[in-house]
Amino acid sequence: MLAAWVDGVAARSIGLEDRGLHYGDGLFETIGASGRRARFLAAHFARLERGCAALSLPPPDMEALRREIAHAAVLAPNVIVKLIVTRGAALERGYAFTGAESPTRIICAFPWPEGPDAERAPARVALAGRCFARPLFAGVKHLNRLEQVFARVEARQRRLDEVILPADGGSIMGGSMTNVFALLRGRLVTPPVESCAVAGVMRAQVLSAAGRLGLATREGDLTTQDLADAEALWLTNALVGLWPVGAFEDRNFVTHAWTLRLQEAIRHVAREMADA
Amino acid sequence: MLAAWVDGVAARSIGLEDRGLHYGDGLFETIGASGRRARFLAAHFARLERGCAALSLPPPDMEALRREIAHAAVLAPNVIVKLIVTRGAALERGYAFTGAESPTRIICAFPWPEGPDAERAPARVALAGRCFARPLFAGVKHLNRLEQVFARVEARQRRLDEVILPADGGSIMGGSMTNVFALLRGRLVTPPVESCAVAGVMRAQVLSAAGRLGLATREGDLTTQDLADAEALWLTNALVGLWPVGAFEDRNFVTHAWTLRLQEAIRHVAREMADA
Repeated sequence: MLAAWVDGVAARSIGLEDRGLHYGDGLFETIGASGRRARFLAAHFARLERGCAALSLPPPDMEALRREIAHAAVLAPNVIVKLIVTRGAALERGYAFTGAESPTRIICAFPWPEGPDAERAPARVALAGRCFARPLFAGVKHLNRLEQVFARVEARQRRLDEVILPADGGSIMGGSMTNVFALLRGRLVTPPVESCAVAGVMRAQVLSAAGRLGLATREGDLTTQDLADAEALWLTNALVGLWPVGAFEDRNFVTHAWTLRLQEAIRHVAREMADA
Repeated sequence: MLAAWVDGVAARSIGLEDRGLHYGDGLFETIGASGRRARFLAAHFARLERGCAALSLPPPDMEALRREIAHAAVLAPNVIVKLIVTRGAALERGYAFTGAESPTRIICAFPWPEGPDAERAPARVALAGRCFARPLFAGVKHLNRLEQVFARVEARQRRLDEVILPADGGSIMGGSMTNVFALLRGRLVTPPVESCAVAGVMRAQVLSAAGRLGLATREGDLTTQDLADAEALWLTNALVGLWPVGAFEDRNFVTHAWTLRLQEAIRHVAREMADA
């Protein structure tokens, strides 16, 4: 870790009574920063504010956050800024919150060795070995992440880049740390936010970039059969960007022309934002 | 809070890189202590060890834990000892753990004003307003507790003592902070651990006490109709013991003869353990 701040003060610890620790009662964002600027910050902040509303968390001081992220972003050429907002120290014992808690604002800065434009080998992907329950607070990037922890461990053990989480009923939720896109009969399809563990910042960028480039999009259920039949598959998150899938189960994919077009469109948006 | 220790050292904070905070990657136990002794400690430790196995967490130093809980138990006539074991500080960024992490052992001691034998008015209970997904790591007392947080808030807002969590398909999981028992046609029925968010310590005590007293028991699905039709309903957890339900939705219950018999049997076990 390069540096960390809690409520604006350099720190390496948080209070033992914090509800983030006791119940996972809070939210996070993982923000890539490159060339001294946080990328897609407006989208991260918008998701954080939606998450606060979903969890009845008073929003943190966004101006203070903006300053702290700016400090973190200059610590290295490429930085990962992890932001955590918890409900703060418990005012009473027990699960319920009172509503009078004072949220805790945590910033951790990590080196980002790959940076935003890393050349990645196409991802080797397979279906996770078990079904996942419908996501808790779908789309909200909360701190209850044991499902993802164990899905990532499965990916590592099977020497895969990602596992796809099947939901009850045959459709998929996404990857353990990514959203999933399929090109199906010329249309870009991704599961709706209500089926997603996380409403990805990069997911939204890809949907809007595709729209601008004239590629038809649809937010709708994807089955595992859809993935096997797709013309192309991609994984997205704020750090890996748009990552083409090279293999899903026993199906191999060659790099699709849309990969470079969409990647270039995302780079363009990131550059525009940095200039703004 | 009366006192707290992290890895055996008096402390009021934990490291910012702890995976308990980032992902809820850990377990907890809420232990009642009375007359300078922790109650049902063997059962709490057994559940903790099962939880460690379920989450591939190296078990903490149980002898150190025992000493630390003993220190906490003498701080007041009645003490709540909350024990948290997390996977410890992250060794890498990201969801996956490496397996080489060093778990963090946290003890927090709180006053327990009611103590174990509080006279409680019969509980006012209703069904929660929404369905709950099948429990993540059923029975394991892990730190991903947003479901319970919001169910407790609902109970508080509706001025209820407890809400019952309905699962998809019509059966119930239990209460937001309790296990649920129904007396149905002379038999004591409680949902199986696979349907429970937590395999309650008091749940097991009640099942075995009933067996000793000649009351037939069954671990099986309970529907909301079963609850409405029951001869009696009870809620259990390590702190409230066996709590009779006075009202479930629009049905009222009078105190059943089994309430006192089961409560006396549990007190007897607690006394025996304290003498041991």
